[in-house]
Amino acid sequence: MTRSALSPTQVVTRLATLTGWALSGDGEQVAIEKTFRFANFHETMGFVNALAFQANRHDHHPDLSVHYGRCVVRWRTHDAGGLTQADFDSAARTDALLA
Amino acid sequence: MTRSALSPTQVVTRLATLTGWALSGDGEQVAIEKTFRFANFHETMGFVNALAFQANRHDHHPDLSVHYGRCVVRWRTHDAGGLTQADFDSAARTDALLA
Repeated sequence: MTRSALSPTQVVTRLATLTGWALSGDGEQVAIEKTFRFANFHETMGFVNALAFQANRHDHHPDLSVHYGRCVVRWRTHDAGGLTQADFDSAARTDALLA
Repeated sequence: MTRSALSPTQVVTRLATLTGWALSGDGEQVAIEKTFRFANFHETMGFVNALAFQANRHDHHPDLSVHYGRCVVRWRTHDAGGLTQADFDSAARTDALLA
């Protein structure tokens, strides 16, 4: 998994391949984020756990805001101080959970 | 479970009975919050799931910020537009998970 920070052009190109993901934050706090909505807390937690399982498998972990029927997922690479290919791969895998 | 908003005096009195919880937000977004720290993502998710189980049992659900080794727990009562006894009972139960 590539863990070196992508250039702004690379970020824009990769973001264009995803649906519903947006940049958030800036500088070292930059991330890509997406909000996922669910019918209730059971479904939200099911998603959170599937995501956590994947995150552990790939040793790359999201930041999550978890609410009753909604989870905001944020991917960034702490060590690289920016966005890496691992973040975009993780975002695609997150979407695939719901495909 | 009481679901009517507490007065400011009641909030202050109940907050004084808890350790490490603080007010956050204001108006209808007011909440009580506390940060819990863990050694790794597995332990953080273990806590999140125990908390979710309790939340479902009591039909009162937190807002969570979940990170690799840290979870911020926020309790508020959406319907009441403020803090209720249910939030303080939930905060005490959250602490009890780690006692």
